[in-house]
Amino acid sequence: MATAGKVIKCKAAVAWEADSPLVIEEIEVAPPQKNEIRLKVIAASICLSDVYHMYKGKPKDGFPVVMGHEGAGIVESVGPGVTEFKPGDKVIPLYLSQCRDCKFCKNPKTNMCEKDCESLMTSGRSGNQMFKQSPSEIRFTCRSKPLLQFMRTGIFSEYTIKNKIALVKVHDDAQLDRVFLFGCGVSTGYGAAINNAKVEPGSVCAVFGLGAVGLSAVMGCKHAGASRIIAVDINEERFEKAKILGATDFVNPKLHQKPISEVLIEMTNGGVDYSVECVGQVDVMRSALESCIKGWGVSVIAGWTDLYDFSARPIQLIAGRTWKGTSFGGFKGKDDVPKLVLDHMAGRINLDVFVTHNMNLDQINEAIKMMMAGAQTKSVYTVYIYIPNT
Amino acid sequence: MATAGKVIKCKAAVAWEADSPLVIEEIEVAPPQKNEIRLKVIAASICLSDVYHMYKGKPKDGFPVVMGHEGAGIVESVGPGVTEFKPGDKVIPLYLSQCRDCKFCKNPKTNMCEKDCESLMTSGRSGNQMFKQSPSEIRFTCRSKPLLQFMRTGIFSEYTIKNKIALVKVHDDAQLDRVFLFGCGVSTGYGAAINNAKVEPGSVCAVFGLGAVGLSAVMGCKHAGASRIIAVDINEERFEKAKILGATDFVNPKLHQKPISEVLIEMTNGGVDYSVECVGQVDVMRSALESCIKGWGVSVIAGWTDLYDFSARPIQLIAGRTWKGTSFGGFKGKDDVPKLVLDHMAGRINLDVFVTHNMNLDQINEAIKMMMAGAQTKSVYTVYIYIPNT
Repeated sequence: MATAGKVIKCKAAVAWEADSPLVIEEIEVAPPQKNEIRLKVIAASICLSDVYHMYKGKPKDGFPVVMGHEGAGIVESVGPGVTEFKPGDKVIPLYLSQCRDCKFCKNPKTNMCEKDCESLMTSGRSGNQMFKQSPSEIRFTCRSKPLLQFMRTGIFSEYTIKNKIALVKVHDDAQLDRVFLFGCGVSTGYGAAINNAKVEPGSVCAVFGLGAVGLSAVMGCKHAGASRIIAVDINEERFEKAKILGATDFVNPKLHQKPISEVLIEMTNGGVDYSVECVGQVDVMRSALESCIKGWGVSVIAGWTDLYDFSARPIQLIAGRTWKGTSFGGFKGKDDVPKLVLDHMAGRINLDVFVTHNMNLDQINEAIKMMMAGAQTKSVYTVYIYIPNT
Repeated sequence: MATAGKVIKCKAAVAWEADSPLVIEEIEVAPPQKNEIRLKVIAASICLSDVYHMYKGKPKDGFPVVMGHEGAGIVESVGPGVTEFKPGDKVIPLYLSQCRDCKFCKNPKTNMCEKDCESLMTSGRSGNQMFKQSPSEIRFTCRSKPLLQFMRTGIFSEYTIKNKIALVKVHDDAQLDRVFLFGCGVSTGYGAAINNAKVEPGSVCAVFGLGAVGLSAVMGCKHAGASRIIAVDINEERFEKAKILGATDFVNPKLHQKPISEVLIEMTNGGVDYSVECVGQVDVMRSALESCIKGWGVSVIAGWTDLYDFSARPIQLIAGRTWKGTSFGGFKGKDDVPKLVLDHMAGRINLDVFVTHNMNLDQINEAIKMMMAGAQTKSVYTVYIYIPNT
């Protein structure tokens, strides 16, 4: 393309500092360097992790930054050493790399990659360590100031740069204005059920929180053959979409005096086989564990918070429960995202149900406000952000 | 036997109330009722759960009680409905029942039994609920006062009563003064490694705390094929026995400034594949989790405390670690204890290493004092309590 090898000036949504709205700026995107791909972003959406970083996260050193990590685009140009991608390819950025070389990538048990794990030599109490860019990785500038890419992605930009280990080519017929959802939320919830919980046919499941991740977890439980899927949310208006995706029972914790775990234990004669926490609150994480049956119940944390510790009594694990977490639903991005896209193309994964609003990049702050209010409203699940083609 | 069908008067160690030493009393043991077996106790030992109940546990309603749950004996007589046992059989009491009828017993994933789970309909924040006897289950009296049997066992008595679902017959040639260890400690640690952690050949393991449970966990890791077993204890004198059982590396947390998890992560280039906590302290439980490698590390809680919550940051599970617990090492008592006994008879499981002291029932308080001081001394692992044959 005519832009190859040149700096591209384009629009992007910049968080100059914590606790402030995004600013639409003209930024410069460097040409892709060795092993890098520059892509034209076509579709994106807001994940609550974006909102979390902007307004809630404790470490305040991740600014200024171009936000966004869930999206899809088309390759504009490639740097030296890139043979797997060519201009025009449809691609989805990955926030978890898959280098295929490290001991993590070679282990079928995990989708972690050593290239993301700068904090490998720590006990990893802070999630912030994982995705921090080094100065040599900076590709965005605005008025001569270097800008970070959130989660090494920075998708709220007309163009962005990804390393080849953190980008995946998808089918030429993929519908980018839908499959961008596989960049984070839908993969996370869906995989939490099928890869992390490993939901078995005939089992009883509970999903706590019915945002995009929770709805995807419901869908994952259904596809794994669960016989009963209990959808839990304080906003009953969210039950409708959960039902479409397979939920069979619906519980509003606000309507019960007793702890919600005891409600679920009574409903299921002892507790659910699998629970997935999709809220990102430590008290809900505990409720999700406590809702599991003794002996073999498995609870998976899919929600995100880095502000507090989760906790429980030792007997709750000693009695046979297992506590796990999920990152990107356990999917190895380069191996699995193309398959998820094919599942969507074949009609096996419903993505239409998630996309409730279409907006453009200029409306990003409005979209964020809608997402933040989302838990209180029926209608907002995913705001599809259309990125104009400059 | 001449005693069949009659009340037996015998010696037992009674805890009349919390926070006080045991009192050797003459008690009356009723004849076995329907589905019950009365056994002559031959060997027993003190588990830290006994000490915990006497001196540390919060619920103070489990008194007066005949203490003890780890032991072995010989059937004296059987009640109606018992066909599986006959007088003279060598037996080991089980604190976890195996009724073979309930949904837990029928599920290969667990060794829980519905008959023990009175608290099935709660979230089970307290372990105390599991083993509480109902008034109709009282078989011991002393000066007309009913006495509970600790963990439905009450092994510190010359005779005791067990339900047929909580007793297992072992080989006629079993050495009761050794295999009594399968009644709790050795099964718990050994099984924590092989059944709960599911240690794989070639893996790297860490065991926190080198009492009887920890030593057994070391042995379990070794038998499962671990290539490296890091033994962690603040008392270096305990490393010697750990080495005999297979430990390859030895770490004393007191000699390090940094968190012990970071020491282990550095030693192993990212963390251990499996860790087993055998101390029963929530801060050690956290260290054991944090010592695990991202992606696939599994930590098992084998130690016991019911006083505090354990806790960690969500990212520590989200990054791929799994937190589990063990009760009786995941062994189904009636199925598996006879096999463990055969393993001992075949020389595959070393029990001699555990038994460091022989005492009799009259010395029980002295033995308890030794156990409580055990963490500070090299020599005390298991005090074998010989029960005199009246």
